Amino acid sequence: MYGAGDVRVENVPDASLKKSTDALLRVTRACICGSDLWPYKNMERTAEGSRMGHEFIGVIEEVGKDVRTVKRGDLVVVPFAWSDGTCEFCRKGLQTSCLHGGFWGGTKLDGGQGEAVRVPQADGTVVKLPVGPDDEIMPGLLTLSDVMSTGHHAAVCAQVAPGKSAAVVGDGAVGLCGVIAARRLGAEQVIMLGRHPDRIKLAKEFGATDIVSERGEAAVEKVMKLTNGLGAHSVLECVGLHDSNVTALSIARPGGAVGRVGVPQDDDLPKATPAFFKNITVAGGPAPARAYIEELMPDVLEGRIQPGRVFDRITDLDGVPDGYRAMNDREAIKVMIEF
Amino acid sequence: MYGAGDVRVENVPDASLKKSTDALLRVTRACICGSDLWPYKNMERTAEGSRMGHEFIGVIEEVGKDVRTVKRGDLVVVPFAWSDGTCEFCRKGLQTSCLHGGFWGGTKLDGGQGEAVRVPQADGTVVKLPVGPDDEIMPGLLTLSDVMSTGHHAAVCAQVAPGKSAAVVGDGAVGLCGVIAARRLGAEQVIMLGRHPDRIKLAKEFGATDIVSERGEAAVEKVMKLTNGLGAHSVLECVGLHDSNVTALSIARPGGAVGRVGVPQDDDLPKATPAFFKNITVAGGPAPARAYIEELMPDVLEGRIQPGRVFDRITDLDGVPDGYRAMNDREAIKVMIEF
Repeated sequence: MYGAGDVRVENVPDASLKKSTDALLRVTRACICGSDLWPYKNMERTAEGSRMGHEFIGVIEEVGKDVRTVKRGDLVVVPFAWSDGTCEFCRKGLQTSCLHGGFWGGTKLDGGQGEAVRVPQADGTVVKLPVGPDDEIMPGLLTLSDVMSTGHHAAVCAQVAPGKSAAVVGDGAVGLCGVIAARRLGAEQVIMLGRHPDRIKLAKEFGATDIVSERGEAAVEKVMKLTNGLGAHSVLECVGLHDSNVTALSIARPGGAVGRVGVPQDDDLPKATPAFFKNITVAGGPAPARAYIEELMPDVLEGRIQPGRVFDRITDLDGVPDGYRAMNDREAIKVMIEF
Repeated sequence: MYGAGDVRVENVPDASLKKSTDALLRVTRACICGSDLWPYKNMERTAEGSRMGHEFIGVIEEVGKDVRTVKRGDLVVVPFAWSDGTCEFCRKGLQTSCLHGGFWGGTKLDGGQGEAVRVPQADGTVVKLPVGPDDEIMPGLLTLSDVMSTGHHAAVCAQVAPGKSAAVVGDGAVGLCGVIAARRLGAEQVIMLGRHPDRIKLAKEFGATDIVSERGEAAVEKVMKLTNGLGAHSVLECVGLHDSNVTALSIARPGGAVGRVGVPQDDDLPKATPAFFKNITVAGGPAPARAYIEELMPDVLEGRIQPGRVFDRITDLDGVPDGYRAMNDREAIKVMIEF
C-alpha cells in the first residue's frame, strides 16, 4: 500500500531466513482485515510503500537451526502478532505485548498478503494445523489468525458469561465473530447493532437474538428497551470510531463491561465520565490471538462454530486491490485470498 | 455551600421522617471529603445553596413504621450513597447504582455536615456499629462511609492481588487509604505518587514501599524504573484530573488495570488509545461503600488497618468553613467534625 486507496501487487525480494529462530512460510490462504481499511482510507502517500496482511495460513518451507516445534511441510496458522512465547507477557497469554515480538508488514517485515513470509520467533508464533491445506474447514481456521480471535477477545473483555445479555456494536466481520463468541460463552441475549441486511442475516444465523438498526441516541433507547431499561451486561465494541465508542459506553448497564477491539481512531475515550458513574469496566485491545487459537480451534474443526462464513468473496493475489475496494465499499464483508 | 469558597453554617428546618422507610439520625461524627473540594473550587453561586456532607456516623432517633433492622438508640455508619438493598444492582453489591437510591445533600436531602439527617431506605442504607459513639476507634469506622471504602474500591478495580505491584496516584486521604487497601489485598510493592512530606510519611507508615515525587513524564519514567521497565500491575487513580489520569494509564503495564475513583473532571478519558494497545483495563467509579463496610469493619475494629489516621484535624460544626479552607490549602489531609 502506497497511500490511501493505492494497493499494488508487486514483485519484492524473496523472503528468506535471517535468524536462527525464523521460519520461512509459503502462504496458502490470507485475507483482508477491517483494520487494513483504516490506512486504505487515510494513509499518507509514501515512496517505499507498506507491506500488508496479517492473517494467514501457510506451509513451512524452511526453518532456522533453533526452531524446535515446526518443520518443513507443516501447515500452520499465524496470529496477527508474532511473539517469542517465553517472555513475561507471553507466559500470561498477552502475546500482543511480547517483549521480543511485533506485527506483520510495514517496511521491515513481510506481509501475509503475499506469497511468502519470514516468520520471526517461529516456535512462539505459529500453531500447527491438524488438517491439509485444501480442507474445507480452512476458511474457519484462517479466522483464528485474527477476526474470530478478536471477536472472542471482545467477548472475554466484556465479561460475557452464561445468562448475561451482550450487545455487539458493529456488523463487520469482527462484530459477526463477536456474536459467535458471545453465544459460545453463554450469553442469553445477543443484540447486534448493525444496518446491512446481508450482515444482519448472518448475525441472526450466528445467534443474534435482537437487531438494532437505529443509530446514536435512538440506538441507545432501543437497547435500553430490549434490556428492561438497564442496558446490556456486556458490550462488544467492534468498530473503533468516536460514535461507536459513545454508543458502546451508553448501552452498558451499571457494573457492566465494554470489551473494545475496534482500533480506536481517537486518542481519548469519549463519554468515559458518565460510564465512570455507572462503574462500567472498559477493557480490550489487540487480541492475543496466539493464546486463543488453541482454545477455539476444536470448535472450528468440529463445526460447532462457523466463523469462516464471514468470507463472502474469494480472490487470488492479483485481485487483492479490488478486494480492498469491495470491502471499503461494503460490497463484501471480508475477502479471502487463495494462492 | 452557596458557591465556590462560600460555606456557611446555618439553621435549617429540622430533619424529620417523611416516608415509612426513613430513619431520623442525630449525627455524632462527620467529615469533609476531597470530592467536596471540587464544588468548593468551582461551584457557581446559587441563592438556595447546597447541603453538604456525605460521610457520617450517628444515633438513630426515630424510625418509620416499615424500618426493620435498626431502632432508636442504635449507632450506625452511613455510606455516601443511600440504597434500598433489594434492587437488581444492590443485590450485586453495586449500591451506588441502586434503582431507588441516591446521594446525600444538594437541595432536596440533608447533608452529613449537619446535626441531623433524614435517612431514606434506612434498612438498605445504614450499618449498625458494635461500639459506643465515643469509642476511640470512631475515626476509623467513620472512614468506612467513604474514604477507606473508596480506596478499597480503587484497589479492587485495579485488580490488586498477592505478589503484584500497585501504584497509587494521589496522596490525598483516598490515595492514602488506597495504600492501606493495596497492602491489605496483598500487593508486594506499593508505589505512592505524591509530593507532600506529611502525606508521604503516612503513606510509608501505611505500607508504601516506594515514593515517586516527580510529575508527568518524569514520574512515569521513575515508576518504570521501579518496575523493571514494565509498569505496575495495578494502578489506583485517586485524583480525577486530566494529568493524573494520563499518568495512571501511562504507568500501568500491559495487561494491567487502572482502578479509577477520583471523580473525573473531564468528560473524556485521555490517553485511552495508548492504553488500548497495551490491553489495560480501566475500571472504577463511585465505591459501593455499603458493600464494603461489612468486609472492612472487622479489620478496623481489630486494629489491623488504621484508616482513621487520615484525619489530622478535628473541628466542631462552626469550624466547618475553615475546615474546607484548610483542606483546600493542603494544610489538612482530612478534617473530622465532632458534634
